[in-house]
Amino acid sequence: MKISARNTLKGTVKHVKEGAVNSEITIQLAEGDEITSIITQASSKALDLKIGKPVVAVIKASNVMVAVED
Amino acid sequence: MKISARNTLKGTVKHVKEGAVNSEITIQLAEGDEITSIITQASSKALDLKIGKPVVAVIKASNVMVAVED
Amino acid sequence: MKISARNTLKGTVKHVKEGAVNSEITIQLAEGDEITSIITQASSKALDLKIGKPVVAVIKASNVMVAVED
Amino acid sequence: MKISARNTLKGTVKHVKEGAVNSEITIQLAEGDEITSIITQASSKALDLKIGKPVVAVIKASNVMVAVED
Amino acid sequence: MKISARNTLKGTVKHVKEGAVNSEITIQLAEGDEITSIITQASSKALDLKIGKPVVAVIKASNVMVAVED
Amino acid sequence: MKISARNTLKGTVKHVKEGAVNSEITIQLAEGDEITSIITQASSKALDLKIGKPVVAVIKASNVMVAVED
Repeated sequence: MKISARNTLKGTVKHVKEGAVNSEITIQLAEGDEITSIITQASSKALDLKIGKPVVAVIKASNVMVAVED
Repeated sequence: MKISARNTLKGTVKHVKEGAVNSEITIQLAEGDEITSIITQASSKALDLKIGKPVVAVIKASNVMVAVED
Repeated sequence: MKISARNTLKGTVKHVKEGAVNSEITIQLAEGDEITSIITQASSKALDLKIGKPVVAVIKASNVMVAVED
Repeated sequence: MKISARNTLKGTVKHVKEGAVNSEITIQLAEGDEITSIITQASSKALDLKIGKPVVAVIKASNVMVAVED
Repeated sequence: MKISARNTLKGTVKHVKEGAVNSEITIQLAEGDEITSIITQASSKALDLKIGKPVVAVIKASNVMVAVED
Repeated sequence: MKISARNTLKGTVKHVKEGAVNSEITIQLAEGDEITSIITQASSKALDLKIGKPVVAVIKASNVMVAVED
């Protein structure tokens, strides 16, 4: 499946924090940055997300803001 | 100003494509990846976004999805 | 690729309206409903979206609201 | 009230999973598909969402992605 | 129709800027602040948005960030 | 830091409701309205959000819908 979302960043799962409804997934990018994602706990289970698993962070372009230093 | 959005990725503006209402900003990250952002044209002007300008891509964690290879 | 987004609805492209930056894609679902999507014009081209092409509308659960009749 | 969000899909509540802050609402669409929504637990209570209640899933067009099979 | 989105702010349309696909709506809130909204041009037409028209800005809680001064 | 998000509304924290993953922040605006925000619990802690603290609600324009009375 090829998706319209423009941004994909490769990494590995660094941490999974589970709530009753949502889970917080911390992704270690290859280059050193970390990305935090909130997805449903059900999705986290369906994708079998565990520490060390290779994943891709996917972000729709309209959800990316731009900031500049003052 | 310190913001709740969890994800910040540093880069420089690689391209600005202006529409009547929105602008598409392509950001070259330090590590080689590119990030595409859609913001209003008015924001692009207010931030004076131009090729080569250092910027930060800012993304709320609830807008990050996770994908795994089949 | 398997993605965390929980909602996928199958249909075919009914209409593509292109702007300078974004495109509006109207998707005819199998069951009669229509779904409208705004993606970048670049994504629309990359996916080669044309009338009649089978596609899937993908929606993250946190972007779905619920309404009830008064 | 008439809202700008372009996408409305009718269904009935199939399941409500409550967390401390958010609730996950599973909506059975008339045509067989299911839609999952994450809203605040407070909204779920304010709307009195219960199994079998008729509801409408509401989605802003800019939150709909498009995917195609490879 | 009663919707799960938690935030509603009343105002009047101050400006409409139309693009090919999206429109930018500037809303003057009663209390002096302005809110800017990007919706599809088709929604803007369907709601007949014009300067001076009373409207409500509607925002899902998961789309609100929080910032503090340094 | 100057951010592309167009909408900023000043207020003070009225209530913090913590879940395992997310927190719900109720913000009292100067003018009487309230804004509800869902951010990660980690962000809430990092910003040290407490009742009475001055904060700014930040909202990307593409996440604002417009409604009109019937």
